[in-house]
Amino acid sequence: MDAAEFRTQGHRLIEWIIDYHDTLDTLPVQSRVAPGDIAALLPEHPGDPDGFDALIADLDRVVVPGLTNWQHPRFFAWFPANTSYPAILAELVSAGLGVQGMSWATSPAVTEVETRMMDWMIDLLGLPDTFRSTSESGGGVIQGSASEATLTSILAARHRATKGAVNVDSDTTKLVAYATSQAHSSIEKGLRIAGVGTANLRVVPHDESFTMRPDALAEMIEDDLRQSLLPFWVCATLGTTNSLAIDPVRAVAEVAKAHNLWLHVDAAMAGIATLCPEFRGLNDGLELADSYSTNPHKWMGVTFDCNLFYTADRVSLLGALSILPEYLRTAAAETGAVIDYRDWQVPLGRRFRALKLWFTLRTDGVAPAQAMIRDHVAWTQELAGWVAQDDRFEIVGPHPLNLLCLALRSGDEATATLIEQANATGRVLFTRTVLDGRTVLRFSIGARRTRHEDVRAAWNLLRELAGTAVRP
Amino acid sequence: MDAAEFRTQGHRLIEWIIDYHDTLDTLPVQSRVAPGDIAALLPEHPGDPDGFDALIADLDRVVVPGLTNWQHPRFFAWFPANTSYPAILAELVSAGLGVQGMSWATSPAVTEVETRMMDWMIDLLGLPDTFRSTSESGGGVIQGSASEATLTSILAARHRATKGAVNVDSDTTKLVAYATSQAHSSIEKGLRIAGVGTANLRVVPHDESFTMRPDALAEMIEDDLRQSLLPFWVCATLGTTNSLAIDPVRAVAEVAKAHNLWLHVDAAMAGIATLCPEFRGLNDGLELADSYSTNPHKWMGVTFDCNLFYTADRVSLLGALSILPEYLRTAAAETGAVIDYRDWQVPLGRRFRALKLWFTLRTDGVAPAQAMIRDHVAWTQELAGWVAQDDRFEIVGPHPLNLLCLALRSGDEATATLIEQANATGRVLFTRTVLDGRTVLRFSIGARRTRHEDVRAAWNLLRELAGTAVRP
Repeated sequence: MDAAEFRTQGHRLIEWIIDYHDTLDTLPVQSRVAPGDIAALLPEHPGDPDGFDALIADLDRVVVPGLTNWQHPRFFAWFPANTSYPAILAELVSAGLGVQGMSWATSPAVTEVETRMMDWMIDLLGLPDTFRSTSESGGGVIQGSASEATLTSILAARHRATKGAVNVDSDTTKLVAYATSQAHSSIEKGLRIAGVGTANLRVVPHDESFTMRPDALAEMIEDDLRQSLLPFWVCATLGTTNSLAIDPVRAVAEVAKAHNLWLHVDAAMAGIATLCPEFRGLNDGLELADSYSTNPHKWMGVTFDCNLFYTADRVSLLGALSILPEYLRTAAAETGAVIDYRDWQVPLGRRFRALKLWFTLRTDGVAPAQAMIRDHVAWTQELAGWVAQDDRFEIVGPHPLNLLCLALRSGDEATATLIEQANATGRVLFTRTVLDGRTVLRFSIGARRTRHEDVRAAWNLLRELAGTAVRP
Repeated sequence: MDAAEFRTQGHRLIEWIIDYHDTLDTLPVQSRVAPGDIAALLPEHPGDPDGFDALIADLDRVVVPGLTNWQHPRFFAWFPANTSYPAILAELVSAGLGVQGMSWATSPAVTEVETRMMDWMIDLLGLPDTFRSTSESGGGVIQGSASEATLTSILAARHRATKGAVNVDSDTTKLVAYATSQAHSSIEKGLRIAGVGTANLRVVPHDESFTMRPDALAEMIEDDLRQSLLPFWVCATLGTTNSLAIDPVRAVAEVAKAHNLWLHVDAAMAGIATLCPEFRGLNDGLELADSYSTNPHKWMGVTFDCNLFYTADRVSLLGALSILPEYLRTAAAETGAVIDYRDWQVPLGRRFRALKLWFTLRTDGVAPAQAMIRDHVAWTQELAGWVAQDDRFEIVGPHPLNLLCLALRSGDEATATLIEQANATGRVLFTRTVLDGRTVLRFSIGARRTRHEDVRAAWNLLRELAGTAVRP
């Protein structure tokens, strides 16, 4: 493909993307295909190139019917994964440049723009200065996902707890980690990967709000210490996946500090709320945390993948992950004057992801995200009012932000059926979860294109379905 | 940013990208900035949004001077990280759609196009059917980088060797892994992450071609078994980073099989050569491997990140990495009829990266990559002829593909100085490494835009510098 063809097809694809976004309303939220349907539309073996006209036709024929449309205004499932025009353009530029950011020397701008963006986000989110690149021992990095941030945090903590021995020959079986049953699955996965194992993940009891009980945490740590185990890491969550429950970070931090545990705060979803000053209460106690992560690729519209990972202890992080083979040695790195972000993450290679933040902040700024967050929270509270007036329904758990968990009083099966029936209409998409044994419908209001009328329509649909199909 | 603005700025950025590529020749290959120079051009704190004109101006003012230009025709450093127009457009579409591919249900097309592309690449690279999605126990997935593929392979192997106990409470300190000193740094890093530790990485001796000695491997494994250790994983490399050395996969596989070790074949750089049938000898023995990875984002031009990871034992892979919290349960997954790629990788979330392969194969096909690979290999051999005629220089190690390691006979310091002086001209970029204690200049011919005259010019520059500045 030459430059002229790139220009022609690039312009066509920009139109195609605009059309996709403008016609989302007419598409079912969830793909209606059955397993194998999409594969059946593609040749089993590669053929001769057939060009861009055929390719664009196949975007419509093959790809779009196979999409669950995360940008749809009535996408209320899982968590949002918003994309937005400035971030899309930044991805275009990043791919166009094709530079590597593994070391400072492999493209200094990739590293230095990223460091600046991480510091800017500290200002914008009201995070503590302990995470700033200019602080004594902290700093931040863009990771691909909160799962990777969690794993990175576990590895840094493991390094600190074993005084580095884990890199060489330490036994990992005495290490013990702590989180509630509401914490994200990436915690169990990360602990498995790190060789800690699930038997050494303690499930800390939660209260009726699904938030961690610091007193129970303290007891468990003391128990483990009595058994000569090595408590090393605790994860507090700001906004759990199940119900957006908010663990009491300050109280958890005090327990963690008292026993020298690494405190990781997973704010993947809810942390972005602190773009609005009125939600900064969420940040209480973060100055005591060893690491923190939140996802601009969820509620802020900075296209996946863009996770912000901060630590107050970069020495342990670097101890865990730094490598320096001969072929990666550079003069700049040896002076210690630069950051080599490859040592802040699991992979070696890295894309120029900071452009997504830079483009977003310089074109739209944070005002649109703030307005959206305020709307979503307000609409969730309004929705809760509607639900409270319908005695077939029950609200399960608190709903301080933009997620309401609700259930039919007639039981788990009815709730599960309601979700299936609602999703089958193609007009909405919800996901289910289980909260303390109870099946609930998660009504997550987080898509950028969601309007008040979409929330209303979705609720009307639930009421309608609850009135007919779900009768025993 | 509204659709009209997205259209306007998208068109501008497409021109900007074309200009960047068309003027690469006029830019220094390596960025000339000093640490902190780029950061100093950016405000310390975020200001009000200042719009796209300022942003595009800053791409030229701030970003481009801070780039080391990996797409430059005289980029001979590290390994290539080629981008190309079809893959850039695919990244645009992927960002535009903003869908998640963590599960089949989260967007079936993301999964099914990816599975097809992985099978297509088996055809195109001549890989064994043991890796095909339709095989009894194999399959493939796109990972972000070869580092992640290596880690994934270690985790699957660790799971198989401990019969799954490692996920729960197994001691990892008895596990032993094997590779040569020439293997990639991600192996040491992956073993550290997995809790195996560097003390349990055996450095298998290599011969004078820098390739693994299978007899030495067998002896080391037997030694470790005598000490009641648990040999579990061996990595053979097709194209080491230092010198593109090719480990003898079939002979290594026979040793691995005899002792029930997992054999991973890291072909990150050289595997793509097998797009050309005449290089398929590289694949000898791969039908005995448990896992394999190669990077279309290096020599094929499918913009980073695009690593192909194949395994012949998906059961162990899934055992190591699968998770199923309530909020990720879907009807489709429970039937077992679909693939949930989140269980094939470390992170949970995933981008629609298969589009990059699909766009590339349907527009350009493999012919341009084949022609490029053939040119690069031929030019490397021609370069070796030139070097052999200059008795100030010496070729170090074999050079069957597109990397020539060379040194000045006058010693390591002279070679290091030569590299620095050549790079300082801005007209070329080389990296150095150490081969068996000797400093060498790596002349890697892998950039898509490199022409024969660029190789000639780079060699002329080296000759010129060797004749003047490097005198003792």
